[in-house]
Order: sequence, then C-alpha cells, then structure tokens
Amino acid sequence: MFSMRPIGFVRSSYTETAQIPKGLGAQHDAEGTLDILPEVEEGLTDIEGFSHLLVIWVFDRVAGYDLRATPPTDTRPHGVFATRSPRRPNPIGLTVVQLLRRDGPRLHVRGIDMLDGTPILDIKPYLSSVPAKRLKRGWLADAEARTAGEPA
Amino acid sequence: MFSMRPIGFVRSSYTETAQIPKGLGAQHDAEGTLDILPEVEEGLTDIEGFSHLLVIWVFDRVAGYDLRATPPTDTRPHGVFATRSPRRPNPIGLTVVQLLRRDGPRLHVRGIDMLDGTPILDIKPYLSSVPAKRLKRGWLADAEARTAGEPA
Repeated sequence: MFSMRPIGFVRSSYTETAQIPKGLGAQHDAEGTLDILPEVEEGLTDIEGFSHLLVIWVFDRVAGYDLRATPPTDTRPHGVFATRSPRRPNPIGLTVVQLLRRDGPRLHVRGIDMLDGTPILDIKPYLSSVPAKRLKRGWLADAEARTAGEPA
Repeated sequence: MFSMRPIGFVRSSYTETAQIPKGLGAQHDAEGTLDILPEVEEGLTDIEGFSHLLVIWVFDRVAGYDLRATPPTDTRPHGVFATRSPRRPNPIGLTVVQLLRRDGPRLHVRGIDMLDGTPILDIKPYLSSVPAKRLKRGWLADAEARTAGEPA
C-alpha cells in the first residue's frame, strides 16, 4: 500500500458531478484554480513557461469500484481500465489543463473537470503527444461512429 | 491521506535507474509487460482496441523529495512540478506506452521507462492530445535550444 497526501486542492464552480459536461463532444472550457499548499509552493518554480499541465488528482467522493463500466459515450460496458470511469480500483483522475497564469501558490487554469475541493496529488508539465495518425481510440471510435449526428 | 494499492507490476529489462535512457532525445523504445493482478483482470476488457495507454505508477525505490530538481535535460534547477523528477511529494510516475498485444492479464507494451517490478496504480486509454502549435514547453524548449547539436 502507498499513502498519498494532497499537495493542494481544486477550486471550481462544480459542486456536483451532474454539473460537469460528459459524453461525446463534451467541452471542458471551465476555468478554475489549483491552490497549492504553501509548504510545496516552491515546487511550482518555472511552471509559468508551460502552456498545459497534467494534473493527477483523487476522486475523493467515490466509494468502491466496478471492473466494468458503461461510459457516457457508449451504451455498452467496457473494462474500467479502457474507460475514464471514476469508479476505479485506485480512484485516480488525470486532467490536462491549460495554464492561464500563476499568482503565487494559485494556478489559474482552463479545462477543469473536477469538483470543487478535489485533492491534487501531483502536477507535471504536459510535453509530448502521440501523432494523431498513429493513435487508435478503441471502443470510443466505434461509439462515436454509431452516434454521429446525435447530441452528445 | 489516500491509500493506493498496486493493480499489477511492470516487467522490464531495467534493474537500475542508470540503465534507463534519460535526457534530450532519449528514446523509450524498450519493450516490456504490464502484468495485471488476476482479481482486476476483468478491468482490461476491450483495452486491445487502444494503440496507446497511460500508465500511472509509483517510484517505489525513491525516498523523500526535493522541491527543486535539476533534470538531465538542463543544467539549471526548476520547481519539481515543472519537471518529471522522481523525487516528488507524491512519487507518482506517468508513462504513455504503445500497446502491442494482450495475453490475458499481461499487456505487452513498447515505451517502458520503469524499473522491473514497478507497482502500477492505474491504466487509462490515451485519447487526445493538445495540438503541437498550441503547446508551450517552458524551460525545456530553452534547454533544448541551448544544447542543440550536443549529445543527449
């Protein structure tokens, strides 16, 4: 077992999961802040130079997990590790956000899909990507093809 | 505090960190396997359809952390959250691997940069990317420009 402790908390306008856009074509344009604890603020040095950050956080209001999940983007269940379901063996969330600006220990970001008060475990610079032509998107591509033209 | 437990372990040819390519231009082409525990194998259902996976894991042989780190790609220290240093407040690692094939609970992958025996916390499908033209790479772009032409 490994013990993890928050390095900070998300501040967002989302107080309930129902408020967070989900499904195909969901836009995550919400702005919010990542409020980093004073004792680790020095770890943010030079972060301003990155346009995008990887935020690793905890689904802290989820209890338990399912090995199969039916995501909002499909009508069929898939293995939880082939989805972004919050009900995972380790309830770890991962979000790429755009860094708008830094005010000391507070990072103003766009692309928030976390509830207000979500504990943050780590922040890393987002650096590279897999070229689109080399990427296969599994069941999601099938689900998108089936629902093309439907509302997300 | 949040307690996390392994869902499986990495099998790789790396037994010491010195063997893992680091620095500018480091190629992570090493193949290895992600051996998932039988009790969560069902969570891999449909994962075969994805070409790339995000693997969240633990730097389990690191003790302690530093708020500033001098990465192999630079001669200057940066805040730990602006680097991929293993010495982080929560020793969480993140790697994008290419999925080659699945044999039951064993995922054969390319792009391993973890030591043999590394505990895995989570696997998620790698789906999207930020367009290259919208990405700023902070101190890394500067360091690359300074060392252009030098060996990695």
